[in-house]
Amino acid sequence: MIPAAKLRELFSQKDLVVIAGAHNGLSAKLVERAGFDGVWASGLEVSASYGVPDASFISMYQFVEAARSMNEVIDIPVIVDCDTGYGNAMNVMYMVKRYEEAGIAAVSIEEKKFPKDNSLLANGRQELLRVEEFEGKIEAAKAAQKNPEFMVIARIEALIAGWGQEEAQMRAHKYANAGADAILIHSKSKDTAEIVEFVNNWDLDVPLVLVPTNYPTLKEKDIKALGKVKMVIYANHGIRAAIRGMETIFAKIKSDGGIDDLNELIDPVSHIFEIQGVPEMKENEKLFLR
Amino acid sequence: MIPAAKLRELFSQKDLVVIAGAHNGLSAKLVERAGFDGVWASGLEVSASYGVPDASFISMYQFVEAARSMNEVIDIPVIVDCDTGYGNAMNVMYMVKRYEEAGIAAVSIEEKKFPKDNSLLANGRQELLRVEEFEGKIEAAKAAQKNPEFMVIARIEALIAGWGQEEAQMRAHKYANAGADAILIHSKSKDTAEIVEFVNNWDLDVPLVLVPTNYPTLKEKDIKALGKVKMVIYANHGIRAAIRGMETIFAKIKSDGGIDDLNELIDPVSHIFEIQGVPEMKENEKLFLR
Amino acid sequence: MIPAAKLRELFSQKDLVVIAGAHNGLSAKLVERAGFDGVWASGLEVSASYGVPDASFISMYQFVEAARSMNEVIDIPVIVDCDTGYGNAMNVMYMVKRYEEAGIAAVSIEEKKFPKDNSLLANGRQELLRVEEFEGKIEAAKAAQKNPEFMVIARIEALIAGWGQEEAQMRAHKYANAGADAILIHSKSKDTAEIVEFVNNWDLDVPLVLVPTNYPTLKEKDIKALGKVKMVIYANHGIRAAIRGMETIFAKIKSDGGIDDLNELIDPVSHIFEIQGVPEMKENEKLFLR
Amino acid sequence: MIPAAKLRELFSQKDLVVIAGAHNGLSAKLVERAGFDGVWASGLEVSASYGVPDASFISMYQFVEAARSMNEVIDIPVIVDCDTGYGNAMNVMYMVKRYEEAGIAAVSIEEKKFPKDNSLLANGRQELLRVEEFEGKIEAAKAAQKNPEFMVIARIEALIAGWGQEEAQMRAHKYANAGADAILIHSKSKDTAEIVEFVNNWDLDVPLVLVPTNYPTLKEKDIKALGKVKMVIYANHGIRAAIRGMETIFAKIKSDGGIDDLNELIDPVSHIFEIQGVPEMKENEKLFLR
Repeated sequence: MIPAAKLRELFSQKDLVVIAGAHNGLSAKLVERAGFDGVWASGLEVSASYGVPDASFISMYQFVEAARSMNEVIDIPVIVDCDTGYGNAMNVMYMVKRYEEAGIAAVSIEEKKFPKDNSLLANGRQELLRVEEFEGKIEAAKAAQKNPEFMVIARIEALIAGWGQEEAQMRAHKYANAGADAILIHSKSKDTAEIVEFVNNWDLDVPLVLVPTNYPTLKEKDIKALGKVKMVIYANHGIRAAIRGMETIFAKIKSDGGIDDLNELIDPVSHIFEIQGVPEMKENEKLFLR
Repeated sequence: MIPAAKLRELFSQKDLVVIAGAHNGLSAKLVERAGFDGVWASGLEVSASYGVPDASFISMYQFVEAARSMNEVIDIPVIVDCDTGYGNAMNVMYMVKRYEEAGIAAVSIEEKKFPKDNSLLANGRQELLRVEEFEGKIEAAKAAQKNPEFMVIARIEALIAGWGQEEAQMRAHKYANAGADAILIHSKSKDTAEIVEFVNNWDLDVPLVLVPTNYPTLKEKDIKALGKVKMVIYANHGIRAAIRGMETIFAKIKSDGGIDDLNELIDPVSHIFEIQGVPEMKENEKLFLR
Repeated sequence: MIPAAKLRELFSQKDLVVIAGAHNGLSAKLVERAGFDGVWASGLEVSASYGVPDASFISMYQFVEAARSMNEVIDIPVIVDCDTGYGNAMNVMYMVKRYEEAGIAAVSIEEKKFPKDNSLLANGRQELLRVEEFEGKIEAAKAAQKNPEFMVIARIEALIAGWGQEEAQMRAHKYANAGADAILIHSKSKDTAEIVEFVNNWDLDVPLVLVPTNYPTLKEKDIKALGKVKMVIYANHGIRAAIRGMETIFAKIKSDGGIDDLNELIDPVSHIFEIQGVPEMKENEKLFLR
Repeated sequence: MIPAAKLRELFSQKDLVVIAGAHNGLSAKLVERAGFDGVWASGLEVSASYGVPDASFISMYQFVEAARSMNEVIDIPVIVDCDTGYGNAMNVMYMVKRYEEAGIAAVSIEEKKFPKDNSLLANGRQELLRVEEFEGKIEAAKAAQKNPEFMVIARIEALIAGWGQEEAQMRAHKYANAGADAILIHSKSKDTAEIVEFVNNWDLDVPLVLVPTNYPTLKEKDIKALGKVKMVIYANHGIRAAIRGMETIFAKIKSDGGIDDLNELIDPVSHIFEIQGVPEMKENEKLFLR
């Protein structure tokens, strides 16, 4: 079964599909091992893994390669955060072709202008496209896909940009009618009221997707109770934990002048080997290395 | 000053140059921010970041790209773990050209056969090249470099492979005489006696490099007391901490059914923004975005 | 239908499958437009396109990317020249995974030692693996593939290395029995007798593949008359023609001091646009660009 | 001497610097061997080499990699066609950093909106940025460069877009005053009058650059006679010759049913080996392969 089919199956069989952000093959493997349903190839995480701002500095080529290398080492589907689609509707068509050929299950594109700025940035540039232009991008994405199971998620930034509930609903309806397989409604309000209002007003069959980074009190049981929401994305907690872990260990090594007494903070090297799949390789060596 | 010159300066000015492993731009930035002298672009870390074994699966192209993307975002020198040199002496010449053009300060090549297996692996294949062959690779590396400040480190695996002190000393002398700028003597003995014996017997001016992963009780003050050792590498502790951090947070999210109550474990998203250099970008936006 | 299935269909429906070498998406498109059955992603061509020797300098990553970018823009199958398989049997397993996920129809691996030297090189290093070792690589490749239609071609270099007909037959039988889907028997003899003798002595059902670069007098009708041969590869004529074309035009521009009077030698820029698919893009712009 | 310094020297020592387009290491080598002063890493050529439209489909990452791989194998400077700069002024700053670190001598950015369309396209979208916005991009590019010898070329598309001589002069003056090291004035008029008028009206010391693809009757002696023009770019003739060569050879092979009688059209394989640098490698093998 191809990854897109797996994701379709998850959407049809589960109340709520729960996925978590990753930035490379390793973090994707850890997402899978923790029991999540899928991996969110996060634009913020991948940009951050390069140490550069999430502002369209990293090229689509690199995002495709990051998502592909995740897909290479896991069996759960990869859903990719494709920012604005890297240009206009023509670029979106090319993007869909590239991601679909890389074995990706779904892509999300947002209605912001290229180059984007991160949605959670206090002083970010949050400029929206004309509705018609983004409708064209959604239609182009759907026309470009080859496999009917591939999914295109339209990400609404109207609440992020401060355009209000009415505008957000209008835009979400337009994109759903243009063919979007799901609507990711983004909010950075710490009060859950904003997102709950949007969900409650949603009246189409197209499922919703939430990213509760800024409203963490809304938990899975609450989201299920809302109905209508089919997927939740924990978008960037893995890389934040990786940063904390590295900062802590590097500070301790510097302060200690050595690496003794790290056993409480990290696992032995053999744990890395196990995650890398060395045991399976050693089995294969017995069979094929002569 | 080019990175190779910075590293030469560190070697001439410091008792002990202390560097730490990284696998991408982000971890390299964290190494720099913690105050280390340089970054070790670790073969194990980069392989692990893809989620695949450290057994020459990942291509030189990808290792160069990893090291280049580290160098892009930091000001301290990058020293690269180049495994076996990716082939014979001709491949080594090409490798040196590629890394030097990518702004790398130094490369380390080891006397094992391609494809390599990780040195710390309990059941690893640890096969050594003939001495003459590896001498040729060191000479080729030195002949290929354009800038006299670029450094080539010869990594001795004779102790790892169980060939004993005498063989290790003989090989280290040959490679030093062939032009190596430093000798990385590798040991996986948990007892520090093995590495200390090698260091005490070393009688050339070429500096030594240690990687105390398996003998962590040997701390920087002990290494300085030995004399002769000029650099210590904490090769893979960053990624081990990143793994621990991600495993912990993913398990908690799964168990909690949500992301509330993570504040003790991770920093807010704004901490990522700061590491990515968003504040500098916002300053530049004021100057140039019209 | 996936590319591997297309290739299987060609093998079952055509007397002789005729493919030609390419080094990027453009040359692959020209191969397809000329009416060939498939594209040979040639190791020599890709290395040459970088301007470096065909001696394992270019990484597997780059070869995969070259083959993938060919597959992206054509509908005929891509068969990839994978040299030695980039290492041992474990590397071959990883290689098969990578190429299969990139949509490649078939890979060819040869029984030479890594790093390889080009087979047609007058003074090349032509060292063969032990038979058992290469058998293990073929078995590993077949075990690694996920789709049963994917093909693994074993390339015999025994004639190239001067080991004689008997050795070549023995090796070819071993690899066919190890699971190879086809046997590429390579010869650099300008006299067709060598290759004809091998083909005439071949007594297994596994089909043969020829690369007549050095014995061009053996034409398709002659090959068909031999029976047993199912595919012929014109491995590097495209890039040789590209080189001749570029050398001619650059010399003329230098000599003329300008670009007037080039109309006989090259087509207008609009011809490039047509090959790039600009007309289709302009149709899509009408539909989706708003 | 770094490539940027070589280009500065050429500008100071030659009446007219003459460069030609390339799309990979091979074509760059052929440009150098033909005696040109530098290589133009052409956006059209690189896009075409992938077989996709020149409409911002190919990522900056791939353009950087193409330019870097050219620079790797030649000694003459590489000047890169960077289209619109891949985004806004922030993207331009990142772009300059990436290209400078890759050893590129100069970049050219044009005043069109992202995503661009090819300038020579009959029905292309030729939309210009506001002058202030592009001024900001030029200033940002100059602020981002580390080495004072690196050059930033501002490419005027006002004539291409049909905005007339006055607008083109105004814009060119603004960009020169913003710090551009040269002005590339682009015209697709087949009549040389348009470009000659612009050059004659140019009254600043900042040198001009011409691309006579559409007005080939203006030869180097004519351009020198105009004064003020310091560089001429033959932007895409190499790839057009490569296409003609490949189309011819593929058609002949198909029609002949074989590869006999190609000797008049192509050189032997040994010619590729020589271009790839195999003879130098064989010399190095004698020295270092043991």
